[in-house]
Amino acid sequence: MLSREVVSAKVLSEKVARGLTWKGIAAELGSGSDLLYTAALLGQSVLTVEEAAKAAEILGLTEEEARWLTLSPERGAAAIMPPTDPLIYRFYELIQNYGTTWKALIEEEFGDGIMSAIDFNMSIEREADPKGDRVKIAMSGKFLPFKRF
Amino acid sequence: MLSREVVSAKVLSEKVARGLTWKGIAAELGSGSDLLYTAALLGQSVLTVEEAAKAAEILGLTEEEARWLTLSPERGAAAIMPPTDPLIYRFYELIQNYGTTWKALIEEEFGDGIMSAIDFNMSIEREADPKGDRVKIAMSGKFLPFKRF
Amino acid sequence: MLSREVVSAKVLSEKVARGLTWKGIAAELGSGSDLLYTAALLGQSVLTVEEAAKAAEILGLTEEEARWLTLSPERGAAAIMPPTDPLIYRFYELIQNYGTTWKALIEEEFGDGIMSAIDFNMSIEREADPKGDRVKIAMSGKFLPFKRF
Amino acid sequence: MLSREVVSAKVLSEKVARGLTWKGIAAELGSGSDLLYTAALLGQSVLTVEEAAKAAEILGLTEEEARWLTLSPERGAAAIMPPTDPLIYRFYELIQNYGTTWKALIEEEFGDGIMSAIDFNMSIEREADPKGDRVKIAMSGKFLPFKRF
Amino acid sequence: MLSREVVSAKVLSEKVARGLTWKGIAAELGSGSDLLYTAALLGQSVLTVEEAAKAAEILGLTEEEARWLTLSPERGAAAIMPPTDPLIYRFYELIQNYGTTWKALIEEEFGDGIMSAIDFNMSIEREADPKGDRVKIAMSGKFLPFKRF
Amino acid sequence: MLSREVVSAKVLSEKVARGLTWKGIAAELGSGSDLLYTAALLGQSVLTVEEAAKAAEILGLTEEEARWLTLSPERGAAAIMPPTDPLIYRFYELIQNYGTTWKALIEEEFGDGIMSAIDFNMSIEREADPKGDRVKIAMSGKFLPFKRF
Amino acid sequence: MLSREVVSAKVLSEKVARGLTWKGIAAELGSGSDLLYTAALLGQSVLTVEEAAKAAEILGLTEEEARWLTLSPERGAAAIMPPTDPLIYRFYELIQNYGTTWKALIEEEFGDGIMSAIDFNMSIEREADPKGDRVKIAMSGKFLPFKRF
Amino acid sequence: MLSREVVSAKVLSEKVARGLTWKGIAAELGSGSDLLYTAALLGQSVLTVEEAAKAAEILGLTEEEARWLTLSPERGAAAIMPPTDPLIYRFYELIQNYGTTWKALIEEEFGDGIMSAIDFNMSIEREADPKGDRVKIAMSGKFLPFKRF
Amino acid sequence: MLSREVVSAKVLSEKVARGLTWKGIAAELGSGSDLLYTAALLGQSVLTVEEAAKAAEILGLTEEEARWLTLSPERGAAAIMPPTDPLIYRFYELIQNYGTTWKALIEEEFGDGIMSAIDFNMSIEREADPKGDRVKIAMSGKFLPFKRF
Amino acid sequence: MLSREVVSAKVLSEKVARGLTWKGIAAELGSGSDLLYTAALLGQSVLTVEEAAKAAEILGLTEEEARWLTLSPERGAAAIMPPTDPLIYRFYELIQNYGTTWKALIEEEFGDGIMSAIDFNMSIEREADPKGDRVKIAMSGKFLPFKRF
Repeated sequence: MLSREVVSAKVLSEKVARGLTWKGIAAELGSGSDLLYTAALLGQSVLTVEEAAKAAEILGLTEEEARWLTLSPERGAAAIMPPTDPLIYRFYELIQNYGTTWKALIEEEFGDGIMSAIDFNMSIEREADPKGDRVKIAMSGKFLPFKRF
Repeated sequence: MLSREVVSAKVLSEKVARGLTWKGIAAELGSGSDLLYTAALLGQSVLTVEEAAKAAEILGLTEEEARWLTLSPERGAAAIMPPTDPLIYRFYELIQNYGTTWKALIEEEFGDGIMSAIDFNMSIEREADPKGDRVKIAMSGKFLPFKRF
Repeated sequence: MLSREVVSAKVLSEKVARGLTWKGIAAELGSGSDLLYTAALLGQSVLTVEEAAKAAEILGLTEEEARWLTLSPERGAAAIMPPTDPLIYRFYELIQNYGTTWKALIEEEFGDGIMSAIDFNMSIEREADPKGDRVKIAMSGKFLPFKRF
Repeated sequence: MLSREVVSAKVLSEKVARGLTWKGIAAELGSGSDLLYTAALLGQSVLTVEEAAKAAEILGLTEEEARWLTLSPERGAAAIMPPTDPLIYRFYELIQNYGTTWKALIEEEFGDGIMSAIDFNMSIEREADPKGDRVKIAMSGKFLPFKRF
Repeated sequence: MLSREVVSAKVLSEKVARGLTWKGIAAELGSGSDLLYTAALLGQSVLTVEEAAKAAEILGLTEEEARWLTLSPERGAAAIMPPTDPLIYRFYELIQNYGTTWKALIEEEFGDGIMSAIDFNMSIEREADPKGDRVKIAMSGKFLPFKRF
Repeated sequence: MLSREVVSAKVLSEKVARGLTWKGIAAELGSGSDLLYTAALLGQSVLTVEEAAKAAEILGLTEEEARWLTLSPERGAAAIMPPTDPLIYRFYELIQNYGTTWKALIEEEFGDGIMSAIDFNMSIEREADPKGDRVKIAMSGKFLPFKRF
Repeated sequence: MLSREVVSAKVLSEKVARGLTWKGIAAELGSGSDLLYTAALLGQSVLTVEEAAKAAEILGLTEEEARWLTLSPERGAAAIMPPTDPLIYRFYELIQNYGTTWKALIEEEFGDGIMSAIDFNMSIEREADPKGDRVKIAMSGKFLPFKRF
Repeated sequence: MLSREVVSAKVLSEKVARGLTWKGIAAELGSGSDLLYTAALLGQSVLTVEEAAKAAEILGLTEEEARWLTLSPERGAAAIMPPTDPLIYRFYELIQNYGTTWKALIEEEFGDGIMSAIDFNMSIEREADPKGDRVKIAMSGKFLPFKRF
Repeated sequence: MLSREVVSAKVLSEKVARGLTWKGIAAELGSGSDLLYTAALLGQSVLTVEEAAKAAEILGLTEEEARWLTLSPERGAAAIMPPTDPLIYRFYELIQNYGTTWKALIEEEFGDGIMSAIDFNMSIEREADPKGDRVKIAMSGKFLPFKRF
Repeated sequence: MLSREVVSAKVLSEKVARGLTWKGIAAELGSGSDLLYTAALLGQSVLTVEEAAKAAEILGLTEEEARWLTLSPERGAAAIMPPTDPLIYRFYELIQNYGTTWKALIEEEFGDGIMSAIDFNMSIEREADPKGDRVKIAMSGKFLPFKRF
């Protein structure tokens, strides 16, 4: 029996067996970003039917397996919270340390509301720095005011 | 008896009583960013002696209370995790949904290591958009490779 | 020192001491709904400056206390989850039992996205029924598609 | 060995393999609502013997597998709480933010008691809106007063 | 400022200071059971206005404090779960050990539904036994079938 | 390899496959109650050697599988706490709401001690009621005073 | 307002202020063991009226405070679990490591049942040992067989 | 692939299949105690090479499986905490109720330190008693003073 | 009423008010290490009577407050686990990432046992490094073999 | 399908089957430390391509399995926190007891910042001692000051 978990596990297994990279796969899937495509392949976003067919070709998935990649996954189901991995934990730490600060400043600027995590996009880039290169992250989410009713 | 919690509570109480804004206070404290100063006043970072003296003047703190603002706080101690506030929760959700994706792409680009949350800076800005303004966040953290030993 | 928690506690204490009802207070605050005003007084939403002044008058709050009612609260901070109160728990139970069903049907109808809890409104009404009156709840939240990027 | 979990997993797997939709399946099962039938197929409610036989036909289940669909499931056993999926989480957030408000207003209207989650029905519909369509949810639960004894 | 917690604490303090018993207080409050009245005084149920006035007289409460006893409390808020007290824990243990058994037999007898904890009554009595007296508990809750919709 | 979990899973699977009921099986096992036998088959109590042999005959278990039914199980290991199933949760809710009341009244009647959950018996019956039949539960546990030493 | 917590805190405060020892206090309270009396003073057991009066005399408690010492406390309410203190944690560790072993051997010797923690007594003594003195603990609890019903 | 968990599961399965007892197996393994040997077979302690070879003979294990019994296990990994089984839970309850008492009395007698759970031994015996036999447990652990440095 | 928590809070408050450093205080207390003295003042270890008298002099404590510093504290009671503070969290992370490695190598070198955290000492020093100074930590704990019995 | 978990399990299984030691394997892998290589084989660090090839030869892994050893693992995913194993728990206890002390002294010496757990190295050695050999641990992590921005 297939499930999204089984398909995600196969994606990972095939990626390593074939010696592929996320960026390499992403470049072939379509015009979306590395982030979006990697998230979809890791079971956290969706591919279009065409993108899924392409992914199946690259990773040796069956047509039925590919179909699962086009369905909304149970987002976050496999996340370990608090994260145990140091790379992921640092983001968690930022929330713990700066969450109330972000809230204070966003509300002061925009009013009572939130930054959407759905109407949202982001990018990750290398920022060259003589003291050691830096990870540069840019996020942009629509401000949503609480509706008064 | 004083403690950082008592001082932080007084800061908040005085800010509202005096009708001040975080940005307004920050502009007077020194050359640091809004984010840094707001974090320090919320008990998540430190001020220099001069900045603390200035803050005391603005908020009506005693000299002893100001001294607490220059000491490393117990960072994150007051954070509610998972966050219950929708604004802060959305950042938590981003980690739950995209954490493994960030890890995959940062490691692919930089190798085995992490983005520092200590040698780190960030900014929050308003991004005008006809479909609704957006919250634009830029983060930059030094890449730290795991030391082999 | 004041805080939103202190103000919320005073609101509750004064409401009982003065023998007021939520609907009675709400009717005098302005044109918003009972739900919105009750939420604000319980520390889960904001009032406008005018509404807060009116609330202060009704409940005997000081001007400084009223000011706290106009500030974005730390939403959800006082919620007990899982809820221990049977009335609130039943809603939690509905999520536990039907959450995956709601997800399946909303995604089938709207695509990959969510119902906003921010651009959201709701009402609660009595529904007369010979077998016992019913609580009728109507919710409406904007559908937000996950942005592809 | 069969169990409700195994049967639910097969239902999901077959639904995707056959390219079916929940509404499509529901329309053939009987006169119940989409919600009820989807919940039952996801292991959160029961089907009648006739409905189960019909489901077996549509999804290629054995007679023994179909029998499991007629038995009261261990409701909620597979729910992730707090929900990690954004769509489901928003409902959880509504409880965190408005739970005490709902309690205050329902008790003010009905007295000491609860809204039943058992003698309960609901519907989900699309609400057309020029600013973006909305998810419209209607719930109705019998009010149950606490019995005095 | 008053709250239900403050009133409950005063009830307990006064009960001990005055050397009263729960049954003794209950006998004077009205025609309800010991269980109902004790629960109300411990902050888990409500008294009528008359009962609350009587309780205030017995325990030396103010009129305002008495009013809190007539309001629906935040049920269960002070419960420690899992219970640390051996007497209360034994009931928790019964659920852990026999919960699935109760479910199996109630569903077999009544169909898909639950025993109400709202339309519910119970009693606790001493059962004389030569091998050591026993605690005899009788519970009765209305069976509520899941509504099909 | 066999374990109690494997045997319990087979019991459930065979019961459904053979279309049996708990009461039907219990009636054939011996003179014990429905509750005791169902608990044992669900992995929460023990059967005698004779009862286990009978159960094996009814459910098609091997002799080795039957032997596991005579061994003290890891009680409660499979319980979900807090229970997610509404039927089981209602009992949990009763403890949350009335636990301190039960403690207060049992101690007032019996002194410092507990109701045993081991020297314990119970029954579940249908109580006919024109307003809807009720689930009637009778429990009896030996009172155990704390030994002074 | 008094409560058992307030009285326990005063007991501790007075014990230190007066430079007393638990064994010293226990020796004057009556014929019970050090363990029982220390537990009662720490809010985990009860004293008789006479013992409480004696304790009040030694520790400077009021008559009303003494009365609280004769009432069944909310046992275990102040325990930190898992214990953070190394001395207490070691006992927790013994359960984690040997709990299943104790269960296996007690059931093999006594049958299906438990060791009572209520009809229970224990002692702690110093065991001289040339390689370093040892803490010697003796426990004795009545075996309670699960009642068949 | 083998692991300690797989070997432990096989030990249990074979013990039941062969109708053996823990004491019976222990008597053949060597001069250690029942407790030590049972703990080792349950995956909580180690056997010597000779003892493991003997265990393999008795339980039909392969040489490779036997080798796992000589390796330090991940102690406590399979423990359920808080214990759900009544027999094991009673020990947990003793810590919850008496932990602070044990700490108070051990420190008063021995000074600042702990009872070792490593340089530790214990025994479990039947204590005949006309009012019902008792489980008698004797523990002895070396007192370890906190090293000053 | 005094307690160790109250005394620890006063120590911190006085330290800041008087502008003292931990090392400065430690240097005057006696011949113990900075670590030991700081731990004792933070409520995690004990001082001798003489050291406590000295501390009282430096920090302006009363004689009764000083006495609390000589009593074994409830170690770890105030620790936040998992640590939210980045400095403390990094140690937690080391356990998460390397705990099984430490176990593997210590057992391979020493046999079945542990490193004592009681017969234990440590030091923290600055290690000059051209690429940035390092925190150098040296720990030493007695190896304790599991006693066979 | 392969995954890091499957490969780690095979490494452990093969190590026991072949009678190897961690130090023995490490000595053949390259010039890194025992700690680093053991961590990598336990799924907590990475090997170079050459080291992985060598590991595959020693442990009988396939080329595809070896490739997994060169990829950044999900660090900490398999850790049990709080640790149940006494050896690993002692390190956890050190943080609980001394974490705030470490923070106080490191900040006093270095300023506002942390000890890196990434630019980090450590060693474990046997320290001969007539009173019993000791485990000697040396850690060194780069001090990272919080960047002001």
